[in-house]
Amino acid sequence: MLAPPCSDAPKPGCVWNKLTRLHPFDQALALEPQGDGVLLGQATPAWANMVGPFGGITAATVVRAIMDHAQCLGTPLSLTVNYAAGIALGPYHLHLSVARTNRSTQHWTFEIHQAQADGTQACVLTGTALTAARRSTWGANDLPMPRVRPPHEVPVVQMPRMVEWFSRYEMRSLGGPLPQIWDGQESPLPPESASTSCLWVRDSAGRALDYPAIAAYADIFFPRVWLRRAKHVPAGTVSMTVYFHADAQQFTQVGAGYLLAQARGQVFRDGFFDQSGYLWSEAGTMLATTHQLVYFKE
Amino acid sequence: MLAPPCSDAPKPGCVWNKLTRLHPFDQALALEPQGDGVLLGQATPAWANMVGPFGGITAATVVRAIMDHAQCLGTPLSLTVNYAAGIALGPYHLHLSVARTNRSTQHWTFEIHQAQADGTQACVLTGTALTAARRSTWGANDLPMPRVRPPHEVPVVQMPRMVEWFSRYEMRSLGGPLPQIWDGQESPLPPESASTSCLWVRDSAGRALDYPAIAAYADIFFPRVWLRRAKHVPAGTVSMTVYFHADAQQFTQVGAGYLLAQARGQVFRDGFFDQSGYLWSEAGTMLATTHQLVYFKE
Repeated sequence: MLAPPCSDAPKPGCVWNKLTRLHPFDQALALEPQGDGVLLGQATPAWANMVGPFGGITAATVVRAIMDHAQCLGTPLSLTVNYAAGIALGPYHLHLSVARTNRSTQHWTFEIHQAQADGTQACVLTGTALTAARRSTWGANDLPMPRVRPPHEVPVVQMPRMVEWFSRYEMRSLGGPLPQIWDGQESPLPPESASTSCLWVRDSAGRALDYPAIAAYADIFFPRVWLRRAKHVPAGTVSMTVYFHADAQQFTQVGAGYLLAQARGQVFRDGFFDQSGYLWSEAGTMLATTHQLVYFKE
Repeated sequence: MLAPPCSDAPKPGCVWNKLTRLHPFDQALALEPQGDGVLLGQATPAWANMVGPFGGITAATVVRAIMDHAQCLGTPLSLTVNYAAGIALGPYHLHLSVARTNRSTQHWTFEIHQAQADGTQACVLTGTALTAARRSTWGANDLPMPRVRPPHEVPVVQMPRMVEWFSRYEMRSLGGPLPQIWDGQESPLPPESASTSCLWVRDSAGRALDYPAIAAYADIFFPRVWLRRAKHVPAGTVSMTVYFHADAQQFTQVGAGYLLAQARGQVFRDGFFDQSGYLWSEAGTMLATTHQLVYFKE
């Protein structure tokens, strides 16, 4: 397991950012070109989830790969990743293609393949993405940040040591925390808050915000069905979409600071539910919206 | 242009459903297998939008193709389509593949290619989808239907004859209609309603609801930026995701009845905005949630 290089006191200008020794996040995102649009990646224990790596780190890796591609036009605009199977810790191959390049938008398709126990290669992830060369236009935010207490007034959540990736983030819960008692009692709250969580979150190793980091933050919400039912049923994301609204100027403003993250479950039925999530900077700028379809049992 | 066969008085049991002469919707969805997972389709004038066909009909065509595929497991669960370029009216090729089949879920990838003026083939659409064999589980709806007047108390919108596909639907506006006066005055409403539309909608030719129809309904909302600004700027969907929550029993209950459709813009910035939409049956069952990223100018 990797020790976060500056986990004691995360600082926006953390010296490790400038050294060759990478943050755990960037270590996980490293890919080795194999030619023909194929990149060799590695699912590492530092980001382990129940089964395979945290979905957010895989999404972030794809975003990194797109941005590093020689033909990349502009910056990430949207991303959809479909988790077709649990990725095993160890090597995998990312197949990345440009499907279409327009004047100001570009369309990407990708798959991750991994060797199986029987020696065959299997598809474990599919997805599409868009990048765009953005132009300044009229703007508005119809999803203003909720009024909440500032991060320093909210205690840090002592996360259960269920999964390793929890340690990569510092979370401060403002409502809808991971249940402390799994008694199977359904939430008595009204529909608008029964499956809603709100929290301050930042990278526990002080890494500054960028597009790959946003893709990972989009997946930090634990399954809404756990909150809704106080029941620890098997659950996992099958599809996630992220719409990126941030730009370089906002990344500079945020640095390694806190994001306000809010998620809400929508419909739970026949083994699947969907949730919508929102990420604001501490200053109240909407950075990204995200949606998931999640499998659950029972 | 096709005349809707029973547009005067749409009826759930409309005789045309059972005849070989198809509804305009099913005519548009017809595909001819070309072998090797390639299907020949036709973008028709009956569903014409400003540029090319209505995005919803293209999404519906992909859903139909997946459901008709010999290896299809279960029913549609999620769909993401990326509109890479305007599809010209006329023939196109849908390339559809199964990327992975699990015990109860299946992952699909697809692209649409079309011949260009210079004779080359170009990718005009990319996407992914999931189908699933659903099992009965615990369920809940955290997005109950808003309380609104029933359809018969709400007047039918006299749609401007801007685009042909408008005629394929009957809409009854409950709020946030297409602006009557394009005076460029920004909405004075608070953020939660400034870009929100709510309406009753049904197929004007009386076609019964199914998964392809839901994919099309997901795209019926006019660009939120028009409502927000009362300004008719160029705008078009670049990516749409649909999460299907309905099943055959609900389709039977709805028949050719009304859906309640609601959409809200979220963030408008640098030439793009996102919106979230919801579709309920008249009885209040949540049928689908949907999200879009939309391009706009100025």
